[in-house]
Amino acid sequence: MGAGAEGAPIEPLPLHGLWCAALTPLRPDGAIDPAAWVAHLTGLLAHGVDGIVLFGTTGEGPSFSAPERRAGLESVLPHVPPDRLVAATGCAAFTDAVALIRHAVQAGCPRCLVLPPFFWKDLSDEAVYRYYASLIDIIGDPCLRLYLYHIPHLSGVPIQPEVVGRLAESYPGIVAGVKDSGGDFAHTAGLLAQAPRLSILTGHEPHLSRLVRAGGAGGISGLANLYPQPIRALLRPDAGAAEEARITHLQDIILRLPFVAALKAILSARTHNPAWLALRPPLNSLDGTARAALLTALGETE
Amino acid sequence: MGAGAEGAPIEPLPLHGLWCAALTPLRPDGAIDPAAWVAHLTGLLAHGVDGIVLFGTTGEGPSFSAPERRAGLESVLPHVPPDRLVAATGCAAFTDAVALIRHAVQAGCPRCLVLPPFFWKDLSDEAVYRYYASLIDIIGDPCLRLYLYHIPHLSGVPIQPEVVGRLAESYPGIVAGVKDSGGDFAHTAGLLAQAPRLSILTGHEPHLSRLVRAGGAGGISGLANLYPQPIRALLRPDAGAAEEARITHLQDIILRLPFVAALKAILSARTHNPAWLALRPPLNSLDGTARAALLTALGETE
Repeated sequence: MGAGAEGAPIEPLPLHGLWCAALTPLRPDGAIDPAAWVAHLTGLLAHGVDGIVLFGTTGEGPSFSAPERRAGLESVLPHVPPDRLVAATGCAAFTDAVALIRHAVQAGCPRCLVLPPFFWKDLSDEAVYRYYASLIDIIGDPCLRLYLYHIPHLSGVPIQPEVVGRLAESYPGIVAGVKDSGGDFAHTAGLLAQAPRLSILTGHEPHLSRLVRAGGAGGISGLANLYPQPIRALLRPDAGAAEEARITHLQDIILRLPFVAALKAILSARTHNPAWLALRPPLNSLDGTARAALLTALGETE
Repeated sequence: MGAGAEGAPIEPLPLHGLWCAALTPLRPDGAIDPAAWVAHLTGLLAHGVDGIVLFGTTGEGPSFSAPERRAGLESVLPHVPPDRLVAATGCAAFTDAVALIRHAVQAGCPRCLVLPPFFWKDLSDEAVYRYYASLIDIIGDPCLRLYLYHIPHLSGVPIQPEVVGRLAESYPGIVAGVKDSGGDFAHTAGLLAQAPRLSILTGHEPHLSRLVRAGGAGGISGLANLYPQPIRALLRPDAGAAEEARITHLQDIILRLPFVAALKAILSARTHNPAWLALRPPLNSLDGTARAALLTALGETE
């Protein structure tokens, strides 16, 4: 596959607007619960989210094996249009990343969000450039649309704007964008300057309005699992202090806690589905006291 | 399997002495070269190394997929006695770690060196404890001998002595030791104090004499790929300043460079086998100038 359903050539596939870094529900045995997942994802699309990222950080992606991530993507593809999907396919092992990216593209999901290899540290910019170049060369599929994932506080490996610019020049069309979750707008502005043709997206919701005004493409948001419409409001041309204050208020409450556990606690309370409460080791659910305090602070009911 | 060759019960399996964190040779296609590997490993055992760790940091373990690591262990097992082997089996994904540990134990290699999950950061001590406890509970094999791997500058997740003490108490016999590559002797001394029955090993060669004098078990060394006898000399009761100066001199030259690339450059020069020159992305071989300068400084010839 790789070409469109009618064999038409793949479009450049920029990302625009509000994408959700989806949470991943778990059955009691720790495996993914596909029914709860598909219900959540289709609900998000119905509530104003432009698309879904599977197995990102909010989705605990690095805690799942390559076979689990392949099967997970395949379980979602019949239910979500592929132009509304991004597969996060970064792995510590080079061969896992190659296999996951190749699988996603061949399964009809050409947009892949790719972490740098996150075990090694103090990599030079040249090593980061060569890593992504090697991935693209070995995969050798012109249908791939690769989104670079800058999240240095977790990956330990920043992706500098100059590296993005070099990759965009070496692989035009294939290197398609960046998700910047670093929370430093100077870095995001550097990406816009060095790679103006790419889709530059922020993972830091308070930067969303500013980024879009500066020419960025939009955001990939974990909070959008729960608050798609207030976050979408930040994309309106007239978004201002009121819309931003709403998001800052939510963040002030939620980011005090481990954020994946906090988001899952809220979704579990809303859905009454325990599949949203469980996390993969090493992450853990909130204890009862923290969960109750969180829901009270947010005005949610159990 | 899991029991000894004659079905005898597995011994406590402490580690003692000098173990080598083996380099991993690569064919031109990037796959492991088993012939070069086995020749190197059997040579190390013949030159005074007590045992071998496969797929540790020096062996670029996190850069190989779970299937590659399973096949790699299976390619070595017919050639190296299993009581001389440790399989490094830590992974970012919980399910990969479970599968690799289970495979190693069932294949007859019960000693597993296990990184903490290294994507997530700022994990609490309780989360680190629960991670290892969950692994052991789910694997459910009393033959497992688990060695904890403290290497915070790469994993981003320290393993505190108190956590080791709790795990040793909860899983006596199964939690068997710690490799401490943090380079902070106060931490290593804390491990000896909190878990006196475990095999405490250092990954930092300059600490080897001091650790053994303090009651530690020995070391797991990357430098031992090239200098087994000078490092072994540090284990002698009469080891002193001359033995330590030799190692410090080697480290001063080698650790100026990316250390896996430097070790591979030296081994490639000694063996004239290009399989030792290649590294897995994101690591890269030294350039010709750096390689020549390294070999000259060490008195090695190409």
